Amino acid sequence: MVIQKTFTVTTRGRGTHEITAAVQDIVADSGVTTGLCHVFLHHTSASLMLCENADPDVRADLETFMARIAPDNDPDYVHTAEGPDDMPAHVRSVLTGNDLTLPVSNGRCDLGTWQGIYAWEHRSAPHRRRVTVTVLGSG
Amino acid sequence: MVIQKTFTVTTRGRGTHEITAAVQDIVADSGVTTGLCHVFLHHTSASLMLCENADPDVRADLETFMARIAPDNDPDYVHTAEGPDDMPAHVRSVLTGNDLTLPVSNGRCDLGTWQGIYAWEHRSAPHRRRVTVTVLGSG
Amino acid sequence: MVIQKTFTVTTRGRGTHEITAAVQDIVADSGVTTGLCHVFLHHTSASLMLCENADPDVRADLETFMARIAPDNDPDYVHTAEGPDDMPAHVRSVLTGNDLTLPVSNGRCDLGTWQGIYAWEHRSAPHRRRVTVTVLGSG
Repeated sequence: MVIQKTFTVTTRGRGTHEITAAVQDIVADSGVTTGLCHVFLHHTSASLMLCENADPDVRADLETFMARIAPDNDPDYVHTAEGPDDMPAHVRSVLTGNDLTLPVSNGRCDLGTWQGIYAWEHRSAPHRRRVTVTVLGSG
Repeated sequence: MVIQKTFTVTTRGRGTHEITAAVQDIVADSGVTTGLCHVFLHHTSASLMLCENADPDVRADLETFMARIAPDNDPDYVHTAEGPDDMPAHVRSVLTGNDLTLPVSNGRCDLGTWQGIYAWEHRSAPHRRRVTVTVLGSG
Repeated sequence: MVIQKTFTVTTRGRGTHEITAAVQDIVADSGVTTGLCHVFLHHTSASLMLCENADPDVRADLETFMARIAPDNDPDYVHTAEGPDDMPAHVRSVLTGNDLTLPVSNGRCDLGTWQGIYAWEHRSAPHRRRVTVTVLGSG
């Protein structure tokens, strides 16, 4: 069995947007009980991550970390035509990745207690980000 | 065909724990000859990685690298209630990821000669880490 | 349906090598219309990434970034027998990963407009890098 659905995340600029419920709903509707759930973001300046979902300070601290290792307005970058946050967004996207694969057990994504699925916008301005979820396995 | 198994890694605190043999055993028992093997760690302060498996200095040097870019006791972090190593553990986990997908060929994970699969504990204290392996493909 | 193919990328030393067309050809030949395409690189000192495919400056700037956080000749590393670029290559490989999973829709990898698939050589010298593509899904 293979089920595939696409949805759009409208971001508010740099920061995270939780998509755990949207992904779990697609898995529940798929009829797959054991298998894999793949989540993909079709962009190069935003990414996906699994992150602690209880304390929002964790995600704020991750921004602090990224701002230190990949700051905006970096004078060493050549690709600057699209703004001072564009190349740092590509760096952050490459470091964190655009795809996640999760186990499906008993008809749902078997995440750890504190694992949430987040789309992470790395550009300063709001964007519309396309996400595709593919669920594969036995019913 | 879809086979799914879970096991627990008991870590000794910060450092790596090789799980290649445990994963290969699950693949061998699965009966899948061609397909994919997905490995997932259900936690946000430990991660999975593929790493050079011949010289343990490589993994020691990776700790050196992480200690430099994500040091403990970072004064800029807000999420500090669970200890000075907690937020750095989340950062390291996000940078290296909690899921790996590997090709299965001829009934085994087709890893490169020097590729080992490691669970990487990022907290200072020992923990029990749950790992789920899903093998999908044709028999 | 499961189809698996292997090919070799001959690199010219440190830098990126686009493999999008090679991967799309395997997907097109597979007969899979909906499912997943998994790409795997069997080495620990080179990696795979999705990256902006329009402006080559993006990939040059990524090298600039990596040279800053994981420079060659780092005096803190112990694993130096294979050269001053070897341990930095392992670090870069661990940060960016050796596997990518992509959605297959309508018989092709459904990449975003600006997403290209790149093998990223992290060693200074040219190498031959083995890549395995596995396509899984319904026809």
